[in-house]
Amino acid sequence: MNHHDTPPQTARPVPLSQDSLPKNMWAFKHTFRHGQCDPAGIVYTPKFFDIFNQAIEAWFCDHLHIDYYDVLGPRRVGLGYVSASATFFAPCMMGDEIEIYVRVHKLGGKSYEITLHAMKGDKEALRGYFTTVTTSLESHRPIEIPQDIRSAMQNYRDATD
Amino acid sequence: MNHHDTPPQTARPVPLSQDSLPKNMWAFKHTFRHGQCDPAGIVYTPKFFDIFNQAIEAWFCDHLHIDYYDVLGPRRVGLGYVSASATFFAPCMMGDEIEIYVRVHKLGGKSYEITLHAMKGDKEALRGYFTTVTTSLESHRPIEIPQDIRSAMQNYRDATD
Amino acid sequence: MNHHDTPPQTARPVPLSQDSLPKNMWAFKHTFRHGQCDPAGIVYTPKFFDIFNQAIEAWFCDHLHIDYYDVLGPRRVGLGYVSASATFFAPCMMGDEIEIYVRVHKLGGKSYEITLHAMKGDKEALRGYFTTVTTSLESHRPIEIPQDIRSAMQNYRDATD
Amino acid sequence: MNHHDTPPQTARPVPLSQDSLPKNMWAFKHTFRHGQCDPAGIVYTPKFFDIFNQAIEAWFCDHLHIDYYDVLGPRRVGLGYVSASATFFAPCMMGDEIEIYVRVHKLGGKSYEITLHAMKGDKEALRGYFTTVTTSLESHRPIEIPQDIRSAMQNYRDATD
Repeated sequence: MNHHDTPPQTARPVPLSQDSLPKNMWAFKHTFRHGQCDPAGIVYTPKFFDIFNQAIEAWFCDHLHIDYYDVLGPRRVGLGYVSASATFFAPCMMGDEIEIYVRVHKLGGKSYEITLHAMKGDKEALRGYFTTVTTSLESHRPIEIPQDIRSAMQNYRDATD
Repeated sequence: MNHHDTPPQTARPVPLSQDSLPKNMWAFKHTFRHGQCDPAGIVYTPKFFDIFNQAIEAWFCDHLHIDYYDVLGPRRVGLGYVSASATFFAPCMMGDEIEIYVRVHKLGGKSYEITLHAMKGDKEALRGYFTTVTTSLESHRPIEIPQDIRSAMQNYRDATD
Repeated sequence: MNHHDTPPQTARPVPLSQDSLPKNMWAFKHTFRHGQCDPAGIVYTPKFFDIFNQAIEAWFCDHLHIDYYDVLGPRRVGLGYVSASATFFAPCMMGDEIEIYVRVHKLGGKSYEITLHAMKGDKEALRGYFTTVTTSLESHRPIEIPQDIRSAMQNYRDATD
Repeated sequence: MNHHDTPPQTARPVPLSQDSLPKNMWAFKHTFRHGQCDPAGIVYTPKFFDIFNQAIEAWFCDHLHIDYYDVLGPRRVGLGYVSASATFFAPCMMGDEIEIYVRVHKLGGKSYEITLHAMKGDKEALRGYFTTVTTSLESHRPIEIPQDIRSAMQNYRDATD
């Protein structure tokens, strides 16, 4: 086994409380439904990644005022992930309501990193990390983050950090 | 921002080729279908986590000969994740066939780590990492990995490492 | 081929416009997201059934004030379907917003039928039909519709028909 | 309430046994997984529609030798549904294996109807009905069923009816 096989180092993070969150972050509300839960009565892991995606899309459309569907469609800009991960602190069950706070963790030339804090009441239930590389959907090659997206993210980051 | 907010360090791994995989690993075959792909024509990220879960379940049932559904059901043992992550090397499209090779990366007292190498042809297209803590589905507290599961995983690990 | 093999007769229904809907129906709002759409750019058919389910759950919880999760959980009452169907009038795409109007079509002793009118703007985009038989989750046998659910549905029906 | 509001007439069909199925039908095998089941321990209804879709895709690719993904992709032919429905005879649980037998029920000029018999052991557990109208993905208008698809379906139908 060589070093390429080693999983990422994951020093286990500690869940945040509501008052330790940065101020002014936008949040996406979601109620977990029956069909998102498994026979153990808790949310099926891949469904969290689905909800994280929905949160990012809504954040683009409703808060950054960048039409996510226009970006992927007519503009032919890919927002795919090079990595996606989540750490789970407390189980979520059907009927549970969460608020997902969106943070721009890093804003590079051709990539950006989003952290998502999913709060259940006062406590963080889980946290997601998504690294996007912006690509051309024609060439499938990395491209610079489009200027309007970069500005909107930079403004958001300045306001929340 | 304090150190608790820092995402896991992810030194970007390098995709494996078929002949650099450890020998004797069990693999799960899957063909990506229309409904697993998004309007960009590629597999929707959360679907990879779903397929990774299916691979683990099939590995339990078909190769370890541990009935995954009996574990979660009558035996009331939880196999939930404390973390789940994936790194993406190459996009997958509808009709693409992958083989997911299962590796036991770590086998602790109350937790185990699985690495999943998803090969498309000769090249690794993506890799998943899942850390499970075994719990009682009554108390929701961590318990020792049940002996039959531990033995089966240890045998598998010895044979493949 | 005997008569048991014959699919249900489906005289093709005609889409309703907003002003031909019965008054006072409760509606569930949904925005279709990227991950609900397929490579043809339109919502993947099974996702409509998922959203219809979510609409019914929200209608129970938010409007009928019956805790759907309490019914299925501690009360051990099953609300499974004996049939589910949908008719599609116009395609839905990512970013499209719909409002799903819930109608109690029939209220029997051990079963009820729900019709769901999914409006996109002024026009019905699709319509769902769900027939539920209430069961005991212990015996898996049909039981009378619990009185609180029956009353709430009857009141709703009286107010909307 | 006018006649447009009336749900389709559904004379409740009777489940078939294995030996009452037409001969020579192609079948798709599926094992229901944890993530397809809900907190009541049974398969979540929309997942059946997903599996029916997967069965149809596999039937195209593996048995009719028509590349479903080529049809939707480069050939720009839509195979969307104007109606989809299912009747449920017996619940399915995680770990259950089913075989879905595909039948061409009707083959029209611009539309075809597929019936799917999902057998659990010797008994039909559920049945699906899907009506497709073939369309141009450019104009979104109905088109004649492409000749290679029609021939393949007609041959299949002749062999099984």
